[in-house]
Amino acid sequence: MNTARNTLVACCQLAPKIGDLAYNRNLTERAIRSAALQGAQVVVLPELVQSGYLFADREEALALAETVEGPTLRLWQALAQELNIVLVAGFCERLSNDELANSAALIDAGGLRAVYRKAHLWDAEKDIFTAGEAPPPVIETVHGRIGVLICYDLEFPEWVRLPALAGAELLCAPVNWPDGPRPPTERPAEVLRVQANASVNRMFIAACDRYGHERGAGWVQGSVIVDADGYPLAGPAEQGGEQILLASLNLVEAGNKRISQRNDLHRDRREHLYGLSSQVR
Amino acid sequence: MNTARNTLVACCQLAPKIGDLAYNRNLTERAIRSAALQGAQVVVLPELVQSGYLFADREEALALAETVEGPTLRLWQALAQELNIVLVAGFCERLSNDELANSAALIDAGGLRAVYRKAHLWDAEKDIFTAGEAPPPVIETVHGRIGVLICYDLEFPEWVRLPALAGAELLCAPVNWPDGPRPPTERPAEVLRVQANASVNRMFIAACDRYGHERGAGWVQGSVIVDADGYPLAGPAEQGGEQILLASLNLVEAGNKRISQRNDLHRDRREHLYGLSSQVR
Repeated sequence: MNTARNTLVACCQLAPKIGDLAYNRNLTERAIRSAALQGAQVVVLPELVQSGYLFADREEALALAETVEGPTLRLWQALAQELNIVLVAGFCERLSNDELANSAALIDAGGLRAVYRKAHLWDAEKDIFTAGEAPPPVIETVHGRIGVLICYDLEFPEWVRLPALAGAELLCAPVNWPDGPRPPTERPAEVLRVQANASVNRMFIAACDRYGHERGAGWVQGSVIVDADGYPLAGPAEQGGEQILLASLNLVEAGNKRISQRNDLHRDRREHLYGLSSQVR
Repeated sequence: MNTARNTLVACCQLAPKIGDLAYNRNLTERAIRSAALQGAQVVVLPELVQSGYLFADREEALALAETVEGPTLRLWQALAQELNIVLVAGFCERLSNDELANSAALIDAGGLRAVYRKAHLWDAEKDIFTAGEAPPPVIETVHGRIGVLICYDLEFPEWVRLPALAGAELLCAPVNWPDGPRPPTERPAEVLRVQANASVNRMFIAACDRYGHERGAGWVQGSVIVDADGYPLAGPAEQGGEQILLASLNLVEAGNKRISQRNDLHRDRREHLYGLSSQVR
């Protein structure tokens, strides 16, 4: 099975500044160059790293939004081409009619390959963004078959299934996990859900969280890269501040959904039953 | 919210003996009585605790199988009535036409309330059992609204959704988790999946694993009772041998699917999109 085809994946856990587009562009350029210098072939950045997260209101978000023709995606495309990397990163996207989306771009040396728009919106995002209606894309790249979704989407295993069933070997998830209470000795549930999503699909997942103190909020800082069995290869960073996680993934492993002599995680699905309802008696 | 309605739940991690029905009946009676003496109102026993797991072949399983009229379920019903408990436990069920099912009974003081038949079969089970076609039942009991599924079913989050969407507050899962390699410092993925399933549904889950050395096989011994956020209240036992885990659950919490001002884990599902397919480009 070991048709050596290892891919070096980086999650750059960064602290963008809300509203400072030039700072954020510069921050992402430094992180991308640093990851590439360390050999990264796939680089994942946080959700909304281009703009920051906690917009005061829709007007502020609109003022910070960019289209796919904007300076941030132009920079990212130039870097992906120069460094021959795949880049997955979040940005505040201006759509037509002044609508906004919480989006992630997948860019490779050939340019912009896909824009995914977050389908499950978190809290005040509902006042700002239009929810995406399209499934997570799966893109054939020279560094592997890569799916994309964003943050709260990971809490809907049905949604994670779509790229997995379409053959994604690696799911890249820009996230901004808001910090909250949990038992002190427990790994954050956000990380556990990444692990479980990977393990029920035998698919690698790289989730890139953020850092920084923004308008009173903090983040889990739980960036993690997990293998197809759901165990971490790098991270979870947990409260580690700004940093770059790196892991070498043999993506071929994700093509094999067998977990016993007779079990295949995807073929064992009994899809015709999943539309039924449990009866309460 | 704290309309105190706490329920004391027990997982009895036991070591049945393959083929020794009398021993196993006695073992379950001792465990049930012990749990009830400690105040347990809901008692969960392992998958196939009535028979043992690793049948040599279908003939052996057939010889050990019982109907719902058999001595084991009669004993369990007598105990549930005497002790006023809800019992969820696995047994090798003889169906009509000499078919077999890997089943779990939910029994309360009023008698047998439901039999669930495992829908996702593990490995050699495929030679022995007929897979169930009915969704996990959800039963209104005096000790809470309880759903039931079995072991490998937990690897299909779509299946776990069915009892959760039907309002189960507590999911009881008899399991026999086969032990296998994992990174030494990591919690078993079997346990992580229980935690993730609980957290994406805000539903308590009690998974009762087994112990014992049976025909060369061992088990994770990872019995765990997790809260509606996915964090353990008791266990994971992990290699703890035979033991009874106990946790007090405020099941009312599971009625509240809110996880932020604006987010409800079930209402946020975008079910009309889950039938779509991710496109590979």
